[in-house]
Amino acid sequence: MQLPPIDNIAFSSDGHAVRILDQTLLPGETRYLELSKLESLYEAIYSLRVRGAPAIGIFGAFSLAVLVKNATFEDSEALLDALSLWHARLLSSRPTAVNLSKMLDRMVQCAQKHSSKDVGFITTALTQEALLIQQEDATMCKAIATHGLSLLKHGMCVLTHCNAGPLATSRYGTALGPLFLAKEQGMEIHAYCDETRPLLQGARLTTYELNRAGISCTLICDNMASFVMQQNKVQACLVGCDRIARNGDTANKIGTSGLAILARYYGIPFYVLGPSSTIDFSCPDATQIPIELRDEREIKDLFFARPSAPETVSCYNPAFDITPGDLISAIITERGICYPPFSQSLAALFPEEYDSSTDR
Amino acid sequence: MQLPPIDNIAFSSDGHAVRILDQTLLPGETRYLELSKLESLYEAIYSLRVRGAPAIGIFGAFSLAVLVKNATFEDSEALLDALSLWHARLLSSRPTAVNLSKMLDRMVQCAQKHSSKDVGFITTALTQEALLIQQEDATMCKAIATHGLSLLKHGMCVLTHCNAGPLATSRYGTALGPLFLAKEQGMEIHAYCDETRPLLQGARLTTYELNRAGISCTLICDNMASFVMQQNKVQACLVGCDRIARNGDTANKIGTSGLAILARYYGIPFYVLGPSSTIDFSCPDATQIPIELRDEREIKDLFFARPSAPETVSCYNPAFDITPGDLISAIITERGICYPPFSQSLAALFPEEYDSSTDR
Repeated sequence: MQLPPIDNIAFSSDGHAVRILDQTLLPGETRYLELSKLESLYEAIYSLRVRGAPAIGIFGAFSLAVLVKNATFEDSEALLDALSLWHARLLSSRPTAVNLSKMLDRMVQCAQKHSSKDVGFITTALTQEALLIQQEDATMCKAIATHGLSLLKHGMCVLTHCNAGPLATSRYGTALGPLFLAKEQGMEIHAYCDETRPLLQGARLTTYELNRAGISCTLICDNMASFVMQQNKVQACLVGCDRIARNGDTANKIGTSGLAILARYYGIPFYVLGPSSTIDFSCPDATQIPIELRDEREIKDLFFARPSAPETVSCYNPAFDITPGDLISAIITERGICYPPFSQSLAALFPEEYDSSTDR
Repeated sequence: MQLPPIDNIAFSSDGHAVRILDQTLLPGETRYLELSKLESLYEAIYSLRVRGAPAIGIFGAFSLAVLVKNATFEDSEALLDALSLWHARLLSSRPTAVNLSKMLDRMVQCAQKHSSKDVGFITTALTQEALLIQQEDATMCKAIATHGLSLLKHGMCVLTHCNAGPLATSRYGTALGPLFLAKEQGMEIHAYCDETRPLLQGARLTTYELNRAGISCTLICDNMASFVMQQNKVQACLVGCDRIARNGDTANKIGTSGLAILARYYGIPFYVLGPSSTIDFSCPDATQIPIELRDEREIKDLFFARPSAPETVSCYNPAFDITPGDLISAIITERGICYPPFSQSLAALFPEEYDSSTDR
């Protein structure tokens, strides 16, 4: 049995817009948006209508392809100039995940490679490149799921944080990939899902995806993870990632570092799953990773029927945190599984990327 | 400057009802309820209209006083029989905090002590006993605040979880007591407040109380505590307690054990503050403490404008967890500060209570 895909990012039927499933409305409402203007594309990322490190990389590529297709250029130089401006604007939407930056770069490089060709040729090449990025992500997710599943067994329970499933990628997802693959293979793995405040991606998206696929899961509040572990209810933690430094330090959704500390305390393996596009080989360690701070209304107002705190009370709302590499049991990529020390294992698995960034 | 009291539990002006500030509606609405029927008194505890281990102990005592006052008895024996039934019903509302049990017991003992007297005498004695319990709690909280403040310094930042302020007690509170006392003395201490899902007592009640008293605070989601600690933003954690075992194992609001593990990892002192009525000297360790499981709608529905997860997804909703004594830096009671090992320090500070429970 193959699970039905979630059609989260695509070109519109005429190819002049990016069609996305608006993730802010899930699970209550399934609404697709067609976006073609720079500011609405920017807003879709900023407001998390599309989210998940790999997905915003894919969406960034689709966005550039559409912006180019909808514009008129005198020549390819003008196209490249415009592309550079759009790249900068989209990149400024969210600073922490490296995938967006990498995929936007890749689109610019694609245009540059064909800069001697005419505007029509480059426009077509960019559309194809965006589709290729999406296809590659699907292939990588399947490989990640396969490697990840090798660490799990039938009957296990795992703990998840935020959403790193199909909605956050192309297919299968990263951290949730092993669960979908297990389901396809008839293995049963139960998931405890952190709701993941403030934006509730675990409650709204992860349980929605697992439910849809017939995978059993239990929703908990973030602060219940320690008790769930204390009661021996979970045998592994699976999380995604937004940027991995050369030493294994990992930026991921706020709360991930706390989970990793709990997992270490309770002796539970803590696995980070992501495509190699999430590894920032130019980044030596956590100190170089920017952490996005978001609007405090997300904490007090956004999902609540009434504000949860007095209006004058201020909030601190970091969207990500850093899990030190030494708290991570393994990093699972499409090429295989890396174990600590990650400086060595990442270098061994990605020798070219590792060396070229050392040379910088 | 003395802070204005929050009038959370009192007798109604005619003495025939318990008047409470409905905590479920804060901070948006300040509504007082007058309750006099057994089931509405039970419901007030169960639905957390009144909450906080010391406060539900006080409320339980007030409830029995009012129930006795409103009933007609042939003789004092009939009064004692009724009291025993009401005691059992109210006790069944919430199992984890020991204060409710102790204060209900104390009211029954008060009636038993005067069983040779007439119904009118016992009725008056019970009203006086309830008021005495409340006054004693205020005195204990002030002493706890004084001892707790001796561990803090001007300019410090602390992390709080749930609500252990005036609303949860009579005055000052337990874990928040040092902050109110500091304010009265002109010392500045800033608080980071965990919002405390699912019932948001940190967001709704703690920031409300601190704000009202002019104490600066920052609201965070529970899963942000690790990052706040990682950034050296807090120098101590202050939490309340619902039941402390003889060895220092402490039941408190869900999420407390996770915070204690984080505090240990980051080298931050973790203080538990509570009146001695919260120590269950008959309880050897955590394994004997019942953990209340609550309705899953509290997680998915209660405060949200729309359900946060698909209807068919199940939730696990433990209201409390257990922090092992060995993760606690100190337990602060009205008599003084206990340091590990708590079996010894609690025995030294409470020799009579400790010995009598050993004899059981």
